[in-house]
Amino acid sequence: MKPLYFYDGKFYDAGEAAIPFTDRSVFFADAVYDACLVKNGRPYLLDAHLDRFYRSMGALRIKPKMEKNELKTLLCKLCEKADCEIAFLYFQTARSAPLRRHFSTEADTSHLLVYVSEMSLPDRDRPLRLILANDHRYGFCHIKTTNLLPAVLASTKAVAMGADEAVFVREGMVTECAHSNISILKNGVLLTHPKGRRILPGIGREQLITACKKLSIPVMERPFSVRELYDADEIFITSSSKLCLRANTVMNHDAGMKDEENAFRVLGSIFEEFDTW
Amino acid sequence: MKPLYFYDGKFYDAGEAAIPFTDRSVFFADAVYDACLVKNGRPYLLDAHLDRFYRSMGALRIKPKMEKNELKTLLCKLCEKADCEIAFLYFQTARSAPLRRHFSTEADTSHLLVYVSEMSLPDRDRPLRLILANDHRYGFCHIKTTNLLPAVLASTKAVAMGADEAVFVREGMVTECAHSNISILKNGVLLTHPKGRRILPGIGREQLITACKKLSIPVMERPFSVRELYDADEIFITSSSKLCLRANTVMNHDAGMKDEENAFRVLGSIFEEFDTW
Repeated sequence: MKPLYFYDGKFYDAGEAAIPFTDRSVFFADAVYDACLVKNGRPYLLDAHLDRFYRSMGALRIKPKMEKNELKTLLCKLCEKADCEIAFLYFQTARSAPLRRHFSTEADTSHLLVYVSEMSLPDRDRPLRLILANDHRYGFCHIKTTNLLPAVLASTKAVAMGADEAVFVREGMVTECAHSNISILKNGVLLTHPKGRRILPGIGREQLITACKKLSIPVMERPFSVRELYDADEIFITSSSKLCLRANTVMNHDAGMKDEENAFRVLGSIFEEFDTW
Repeated sequence: MKPLYFYDGKFYDAGEAAIPFTDRSVFFADAVYDACLVKNGRPYLLDAHLDRFYRSMGALRIKPKMEKNELKTLLCKLCEKADCEIAFLYFQTARSAPLRRHFSTEADTSHLLVYVSEMSLPDRDRPLRLILANDHRYGFCHIKTTNLLPAVLASTKAVAMGADEAVFVREGMVTECAHSNISILKNGVLLTHPKGRRILPGIGREQLITACKKLSIPVMERPFSVRELYDADEIFITSSSKLCLRANTVMNHDAGMKDEENAFRVLGSIFEEFDTW
């Protein structure tokens, strides 16, 4: 299917002029977004994504373009137009202001951008290759904003090195990845960085925790070190578009892949929910 | 005059759709910019701004839309259209990619955005009111990118508190301001944060250093603390649109304004260059 681009109530082609200079994503990255999978025209876990999207707007005092329920109805209608099995739904709100000025005001309205594009789910049997990258990001990683340059640079480095994802490291400790969360399994216990300013509270991460609890795998939300990453029994990469995948290398060194039984149980639980939905 | 908006070779109105979804400023803040004053249709210190702009693109491996000389000619032509005494020239280049994907490639082309708008120079006799804000910014502050959300939030806080500018503080030390550099004068010596990843190498900051050297005022490029800021004889705020202004309060406490003689010499030197240009 041809991607569907929607901006402030109108449809556009990707290369077409669509966004005005008043959209503060352009000058200031003064914008938040969220995204989820779409299966047969229905957005997956949309309520959780909408809740986070409205929390992101709230944290930055961005005025929503419309009420949550109204947006939900709109997004569902747009997704119905996706005539493919799997698609990706992306939605973004940027503050709007007529002049370029750093500060925002209570009177600033906002713009709404949505797109839906066909995608293929990643091969769930192919483990990911990881690289390490210094975490130079700012202190608002818990808010899903478009201030993504460090993620762009780390992802570019990963691709250049033939890898799939970059793991951010801050003072020797693993935080998350350029566009996913990372968790490890060691001696039957799941370790994952606690929520806070250093990571995005991923919905895939939440699903992983829920799956572990259901399977009686203990969960410890604490930072783990690069050394622990290399020594992990399993490495899980979670995101809304990948759901949950294993990783098998870190900087070209073999890693993870040592607790197949638990890995299969965890991935099985997460994918079953999606497959049977 | 009505602001002049220019994008990839075409003129637009501010509120008009002008920017395509392929412009990676919108999704990733994968964009750099620069800006300068325009006096009677001529951009001030354009060469220095263009040099920094091309350095910013180089640091992120963004492919310039055109050669530096070609861009200079274009910007000068656009500025000639400004039929006002003082205007502001802003130019931005974002990477372009047909799909939303985090990584960039060598093949990615780029977009060019320019605007010129009338402005009034700030009253050089009115000292600025400052607030303090935690420096939560990322580790690429030396590159002039659109990842500006922390500057937006700090500026918004400053305006809400009736102030003009927010001073970023990291671990007790002053780095720079939300949209300017900050330097202090103490016992006849200028202190200013050294270049590096923590501050933008401001062209106004460079002018201030040059002016001090010309006036035989010693310059020490080293970080100074919040305590030193409160105890300063003079506080100077420099930026391309403000040139150089004094500050007289920090968080509503009186500060600076204790070495009028040197302050007048410094500001006189900087403004004379602009006034007689």
